[in-house]
Amino acid sequence: MRTSDTAVTLSPSRHVVVTPGMCSGGSLLFGRIGDWTWDAVADACGMNVHAARTPAGKPAYLAFYYFHVRGGRTVHPHGLTFGDELRVTSRVFRLGGSSVITLHRLAPADLSLPDALLDPAEVYEDPYPDCLYAQNFNRWVARTETGNTGLAQVLPTGFDDADLPRLPNRYSPRALVGAARAAGAFHPAGPPGFTEAGGSHTVEYTLDVVRDLNGAGLMYFASYFSIFDTALLRLWHSLGRTDAQFLRRRVTDQRIAYVGNADPGAVFTITLHRWLHPDRPGSEAVDMALREKATDRLIAVCAVETDTGS
Amino acid sequence: MRTSDTAVTLSPSRHVVVTPGMCSGGSLLFGRIGDWTWDAVADACGMNVHAARTPAGKPAYLAFYYFHVRGGRTVHPHGLTFGDELRVTSRVFRLGGSSVITLHRLAPADLSLPDALLDPAEVYEDPYPDCLYAQNFNRWVARTETGNTGLAQVLPTGFDDADLPRLPNRYSPRALVGAARAAGAFHPAGPPGFTEAGGSHTVEYTLDVVRDLNGAGLMYFASYFSIFDTALLRLWHSLGRTDAQFLRRRVTDQRIAYVGNADPGAVFTITLHRWLHPDRPGSEAVDMALREKATDRLIAVCAVETDTGS
Repeated sequence: MRTSDTAVTLSPSRHVVVTPGMCSGGSLLFGRIGDWTWDAVADACGMNVHAARTPAGKPAYLAFYYFHVRGGRTVHPHGLTFGDELRVTSRVFRLGGSSVITLHRLAPADLSLPDALLDPAEVYEDPYPDCLYAQNFNRWVARTETGNTGLAQVLPTGFDDADLPRLPNRYSPRALVGAARAAGAFHPAGPPGFTEAGGSHTVEYTLDVVRDLNGAGLMYFASYFSIFDTALLRLWHSLGRTDAQFLRRRVTDQRIAYVGNADPGAVFTITLHRWLHPDRPGSEAVDMALREKATDRLIAVCAVETDTGS
Repeated sequence: MRTSDTAVTLSPSRHVVVTPGMCSGGSLLFGRIGDWTWDAVADACGMNVHAARTPAGKPAYLAFYYFHVRGGRTVHPHGLTFGDELRVTSRVFRLGGSSVITLHRLAPADLSLPDALLDPAEVYEDPYPDCLYAQNFNRWVARTETGNTGLAQVLPTGFDDADLPRLPNRYSPRALVGAARAAGAFHPAGPPGFTEAGGSHTVEYTLDVVRDLNGAGLMYFASYFSIFDTALLRLWHSLGRTDAQFLRRRVTDQRIAYVGNADPGAVFTITLHRWLHPDRPGSEAVDMALREKATDRLIAVCAVETDTGS
């Protein structure tokens, strides 16, 4: 009997039985997708991604630079429970420099799908409506002398993207991510078709030393999802919505651009803007910017579209 | 190339490359060990543990009743990082009724070990000093009409422990766990050889709707580790210790007895007692009791022994 997360490596897809450690209202699914990205890059590039080193022998990390997830009708980020069965198909692409992009499709295991390599045209233009799609844009980085706040791009020993397929330029998220980093928002004027609801909302958050750091002592990319969700929940509370409503939310689209990292003790401000779609009741977009309070340094930008169920 | 968490099922052991999603200062490793327990029980009992049902067709959960972990010289809970390679060996035992006990040994992958079934005598009496050992005592439960606060023992359809080996009585944790539940402490008078340091310390904690619930909407067993760590960190701060010291701590022994669950909105009090060992500088034991503030209902009991590095 095959259970959870047993993979036939080098195969383009894996059968996954959802376990407690990969589903929740929190960030466990995002963390697991990130692990699959590292696995996929390791397989595609034939290198030990998990123990990568710079030419100088220092640890190199395949850091998350941009994480985009689109929830489907059946599979969506906070809608999985124990025993759900998925067929996860992944593919890694070359973006140039020290970057790679990895696409994942999480399909219900009983959905009939062609047994083919994942096609970017499907992901970006013609997705299966039941599936969840994730796009991870990763860059190799290493620590400098300034701790977590000064990470530098590096090219680790053994990394070779020459055999990877190139992502067609029209799908590259580079421009979109660059603009979000420059503006501190994915949608400075709101997503197309949405109109702003109320003014901005600001909450404060202190880095959680117990939960926000990964095994290398850096802020964990999946924790950013929890931090933004913490801010989102406070916004929901301010609107008179309940915990139960929050737990039932259906995320249809979420993007995070990772701009910076931080050290224990950091205090952040998160500024939120909310947008509503006049023709789609319950469809709500929230843009969030996470900044280090003491320096106003931008740490991350997030845009989330939710079906609030109301 | 084989990477993270690829398992040959039915084999007593698996080679694991540590990924970001299974190590941190937080509870990811405990969550992953719990997933391995469910996998091991599924294999040993030939049933779909992840989608188990009561005879009435309601979801049944293989809940964590007691989690005991002993950190080793090389492998300890908060000491793993990306790329570390482990050999994880697991075995499931019968305890009677609707309970099972699962033992895990997490060995450094390069440690030479006999290729044999995991022997309880090794785990309880003669452990390899480099290894981490975990003991999970699980019981089948289902929800009643009272939400998360009223879970009842059940026997799910298809669960059959007849072919499981029996854990020798002398190793059974039943009495120890029963006493801890009755006393609200594993060590009401301190662990043997330790003397109490200072009085008790109490902190308040509100259930974190974003992070503390699992995919079934129950408080996640691994979150209890984070909740107790949050209380422990506040105790450390009150002693003038830093975040950096906390992150360097080495947990040599930690036990949690799970007594209750709770609903969103719950507020808890955590009462801590600290004990020191006169002959082992830096060796510190802390006993903690987690109670629902409004009702004083006991939710969990934790004992942790730490090498504080001081």
